[in-house]
Amino acid sequence: MGTIHAKSQGHIPHVASNGLLDRRALLTGGVAFAGAVSVSAAVSTGAAAEPLTEPEWSLFPGGPMPPYQVPSSFEKNVIRLIDNPNSLPKTSHARTPHHQLAGVITPNGLHFNVNHGGVPEIDPTKHMLLIHGLVKRPLVFTVESLLKYPMVSRINFLECGGNSTSLFSNEPVQGGVQEIHGFASCSDWTGVPLAVLLDEAGVDPSGTWFIAEGADAPHLTRSVPLSKAYDDAIVALFQNGERLMPGNGYPMRLFLPGWEGNMNTKYLRRIKVTDGPALTYHEAHTYTDPLPNGQSFQFYFVQEVKSFITSPSPGLQLAGPGYVEITGLAYSGNGRITKVMVSADGGQSWGEAALQGTPLPKAFTRFRMPWHWDGAPAVLQSRAWDEAGNVQPTRREFIALRGETKSPSKWSDFPSHHFNAITSWGVNSMGEVSHVYA
Amino acid sequence: MGTIHAKSQGHIPHVASNGLLDRRALLTGGVAFAGAVSVSAAVSTGAAAEPLTEPEWSLFPGGPMPPYQVPSSFEKNVIRLIDNPNSLPKTSHARTPHHQLAGVITPNGLHFNVNHGGVPEIDPTKHMLLIHGLVKRPLVFTVESLLKYPMVSRINFLECGGNSTSLFSNEPVQGGVQEIHGFASCSDWTGVPLAVLLDEAGVDPSGTWFIAEGADAPHLTRSVPLSKAYDDAIVALFQNGERLMPGNGYPMRLFLPGWEGNMNTKYLRRIKVTDGPALTYHEAHTYTDPLPNGQSFQFYFVQEVKSFITSPSPGLQLAGPGYVEITGLAYSGNGRITKVMVSADGGQSWGEAALQGTPLPKAFTRFRMPWHWDGAPAVLQSRAWDEAGNVQPTRREFIALRGETKSPSKWSDFPSHHFNAITSWGVNSMGEVSHVYA
Repeated sequence: MGTIHAKSQGHIPHVASNGLLDRRALLTGGVAFAGAVSVSAAVSTGAAAEPLTEPEWSLFPGGPMPPYQVPSSFEKNVIRLIDNPNSLPKTSHARTPHHQLAGVITPNGLHFNVNHGGVPEIDPTKHMLLIHGLVKRPLVFTVESLLKYPMVSRINFLECGGNSTSLFSNEPVQGGVQEIHGFASCSDWTGVPLAVLLDEAGVDPSGTWFIAEGADAPHLTRSVPLSKAYDDAIVALFQNGERLMPGNGYPMRLFLPGWEGNMNTKYLRRIKVTDGPALTYHEAHTYTDPLPNGQSFQFYFVQEVKSFITSPSPGLQLAGPGYVEITGLAYSGNGRITKVMVSADGGQSWGEAALQGTPLPKAFTRFRMPWHWDGAPAVLQSRAWDEAGNVQPTRREFIALRGETKSPSKWSDFPSHHFNAITSWGVNSMGEVSHVYA
Repeated sequence: MGTIHAKSQGHIPHVASNGLLDRRALLTGGVAFAGAVSVSAAVSTGAAAEPLTEPEWSLFPGGPMPPYQVPSSFEKNVIRLIDNPNSLPKTSHARTPHHQLAGVITPNGLHFNVNHGGVPEIDPTKHMLLIHGLVKRPLVFTVESLLKYPMVSRINFLECGGNSTSLFSNEPVQGGVQEIHGFASCSDWTGVPLAVLLDEAGVDPSGTWFIAEGADAPHLTRSVPLSKAYDDAIVALFQNGERLMPGNGYPMRLFLPGWEGNMNTKYLRRIKVTDGPALTYHEAHTYTDPLPNGQSFQFYFVQEVKSFITSPSPGLQLAGPGYVEITGLAYSGNGRITKVMVSADGGQSWGEAALQGTPLPKAFTRFRMPWHWDGAPAVLQSRAWDEAGNVQPTRREFIALRGETKSPSKWSDFPSHHFNAITSWGVNSMGEVSHVYA
């Protein structure tokens, strides 16, 4: 069977050097792909004139429908990257396989997790949420009672403050997009506005912060400015339509759209209104970074504008010169993505990518960029802008402000959080992709 | 433990009779809910001053993170309704449990299925898609080759043409929203534009339709106007980010946004360009309905504007008079939802519901409406409008055009497809909900 020979793509407008095509290239026609096999070629090599065969699934009925369906057994390698499979007494991580996914919704099975004491199995009929502190009337809520409240639904990304930590290293740590950027996912979240619950408790005018605490064994505790409750915080009960996954906070979690993942307290059991932050372990130690100027990077909340290319990415290999679609994800804790630019020459020239569908605020936006790879080495980058006017920094700009580490380093002793600068994927002449600095 | 007594809600603007509140009621404050328990009440009945307990999950580490996570075992009743669990040689149905879900994305585990020959287990490395007929160059595609093509991602609903069939009955068939409306779901679909593949094959000017055929044993075959391919049809490979579920067409399916589910051929193996429809079994028989005027309802494609209330709905019971949030889903195969009105008095008066987030074209839109139930019988309805100017018909208007059946009837002998009129849920003074005509 012969492959179709690549045609010249010289009449497609190039928008940047090294083969980046206009994002509207497909509308103009004439792009040549390398995927299909012509039937005449198939026939000439001995296949039948009707090339469709009748394998077993075309001849016999299939199996029963399960009450809850799961992916095909042929997709058993599309899984989260687990670093503590035996649940030893330390933090566990599960990373989303962005290189194997498409679109903007992360399926619940593959949403990332970071848990400091394993995944608890909580009986929802016994779980309680207490709202107290500087309130007129302390209140207790069960899952059943929260279901009687008004709800809101929003598609929002969630990102761990420690996502992309390895990019602080002074050498490009080798890993794929799952290892490097796998602590970000995006779901349709539904829950009760925290403001509604606080209004019912009656917040005292002296209240300016609240402390959120989880019900699982570590009782992870974080301080949150009260203003976020009156902006868009919810007590989330549903994730992509169904109840929260056990690793994502079942039966209820705090959800703070666009803010550092660790603050989105899972297994939420306490909201205590206070007149200041509590300086808890995770905010005073774990999620505080040293700055080059000797000060500390602390009480930052927003996950700033960011993007990365999911394909091509390390571990995926280009088959040969010709058409390649570059695609990836962009998001900002400040609102909608307004623009994504892509470079194939390490940031020397840029072309504007196509954004899929309607970019939603504080949500993944999928971008796509047509590329004609000529077989020479290339460096792929993406750079995003948000509606608040923020632009994703270069790595050089970013580390000048936030610092750098020597690789390998113990992440907790060095700057390791809120990395949002540009990622570079190098492509060599063999079509192999690796993580580079450019 | 005492419940909070309902406060007067007299100062919240009512927008329609029987207790419908202004959709902005929550912004004005003063709505009283019946969910929380005050801590002082808990203490007065003997509970500790600190009402939080330390159950097992607060004292001991939790379990390991699975590579692919699934819902909590406490949610084992949130499942699809399966009518052919042993896969007998007949059509199998799996219905989405809308009454248990929230938001607009249907999780992949709970997406509806209608399969005429069970769920095939297809080896993606052996599956082929043939594009032939009135084309210059017949082509064969594998999954691997399609992955090299440009893709698009869109959040779209999918609805079986036979969804809501029981509403054709001259008596209100008793069932919940899962039984009645469970053949509609909404996902983030990603695939290759069919137009790109057809352009590569080179469609002959005489081509006006195409025939799509599935690879599973029934080889279900449908005719589709070629114009849809150049509008928004895709060969879908991904569903909510991951590969298609086995029941939803793995490894590839035709996806025709907004059009009758049965035409969205699963396990797609053939696209044959023709100069007319093929009058296949499913389009000439199954999905053709008699009309009251003696003609046939055939070659309709669009799933017209529709909505239904998911909560309260039959099987759910109101706990007592007081605040209730009415919520449901609206969608149209013609584009975006622009307005949803809700009635609590069987359509005598209407109030405008709040639409969640950014309504997307040909996608579920979640609506919400605050309601103060006074404990008297009520009839809840929703009615949707789309951006093309269509309005969801009343049942009376609808059956005048499309006909009615005597219940129970054999669905294939009577009008049974594309029901999109208003659904009515009756609430009695006990708070019980049932399906009624009003």
